Amino acid sequence: MKFCSECAAPVSLAIPAGDNRPRYVCGNCATIHYQNPKMVLGTIPVWERDGELKVLLCKRAIEPRHGYWTLPAGFMENNETTAEGAIRETQEEAGANIALGQMFSLLNVARVHQVHMFYLATLLDLDFAPGEESLEVQLFSEAEIPWDDLAFPTIHTTLELFFADRVKIREGGSYGFHTQDIIRNMRSDNSTT
Amino acid sequence: MKFCSECAAPVSLAIPAGDNRPRYVCGNCATIHYQNPKMVLGTIPVWERDGELKVLLCKRAIEPRHGYWTLPAGFMENNETTAEGAIRETQEEAGANIALGQMFSLLNVARVHQVHMFYLATLLDLDFAPGEESLEVQLFSEAEIPWDDLAFPTIHTTLELFFADRVKIREGGSYGFHTQDIIRNMRSDNSTT
Ligand SMILES: [Zn+2]
Ligand SMILES: [Zn+2]
Repeated sequence: MKFCSECAAPVSLAIPAGDNRPRYVCGNCATIHYQNPKMVLGTIPVWERDGELKVLLCKRAIEPRHGYWTLPAGFMENNETTAEGAIRETQEEAGANIALGQMFSLLNVARVHQVHMFYLATLLDLDFAPGEESLEVQLFSEAEIPWDDLAFPTIHTTLELFFADRVKIREGGSYGFHTQDIIRNMRSDNSTT
Repeated sequence: MKFCSECAAPVSLAIPAGDNRPRYVCGNCATIHYQNPKMVLGTIPVWERDGELKVLLCKRAIEPRHGYWTLPAGFMENNETTAEGAIRETQEEAGANIALGQMFSLLNVARVHQVHMFYLATLLDLDFAPGEESLEVQLFSEAEIPWDDLAFPTIHTTLELFFADRVKIREGGSYGFHTQDIIRNMRSDNSTT
């Protein structure tokens, strides 16, 4: 940020009165321009028939991580709830019709100022199709998940937590809500979403 | 937003290619200025002795809702996790030393583009004191909670959910994780945080 979005004067970093960290402050109109983390919302869309469970993944058509697989997810928009955003992203990226379940994972990626949240979801039909940001959309059983070609650490972690909970469910348990901090890089070459 | 924060040229609302909603786009350098919801992080700091439980509340020294009571909470900053932000806000607003517990509530306030999250927390000592944004900091038993003088609907809802879970705990249950959408206004005069 170089200029004030309210008056076009140059901004500079300064610690405002009563604050304790540097902000972009306008030298002309004194507006303080705060910068805050963003939320990324997604789902784990599941199709289960005859005891076999599959998860819907999207192959990314955009950078970062073009060509890698992801759960449908994207940035939360103003004027929507986390649940509405998760449903919207699933529709936009995978063309998938879902019944949304409970929030399943909340993952902090502090390094890139993001919090990722994934909801459980049930596919209502098989009429899914790639949206503009996806090359392909495909169902994967646990054995078929392309672990080495997942786009982001939050996808890897969420799928690991999901299949671990599936084991608990077979033993009579239920899905949990999981919070975790992502420290590691997925690859050396890139960051998240 | 009136001017581009990168080049100071005027911005205008337009739907970028491949997008489906209006964004502030710079007519000069073509930067798209996205606007996204913000996170507010807080805690429910609890002091429990001899079977009596009390919750720490702060009386706000700032607008909006000056003079009304709140759980310690504030906007998440870049480079921190949700847990780190919740601990920081509790320290800043209430001067309170806590052991952080699990995430307890996640509340959507779509009308003002905010998501509020509250963690369970245990006070480590009674050495709390109002920070710059608080007039007073005080422990309240359930019977003493100033329900009519709470600052925000998310505080009201979180405290209601908390005391409902306390009933379940006395019956052998445990704390849940609660998601809820806030629709109502607290008062006609104001919005959240
Ligand atoms: Zn200005
Ligand atoms: Zn520009």
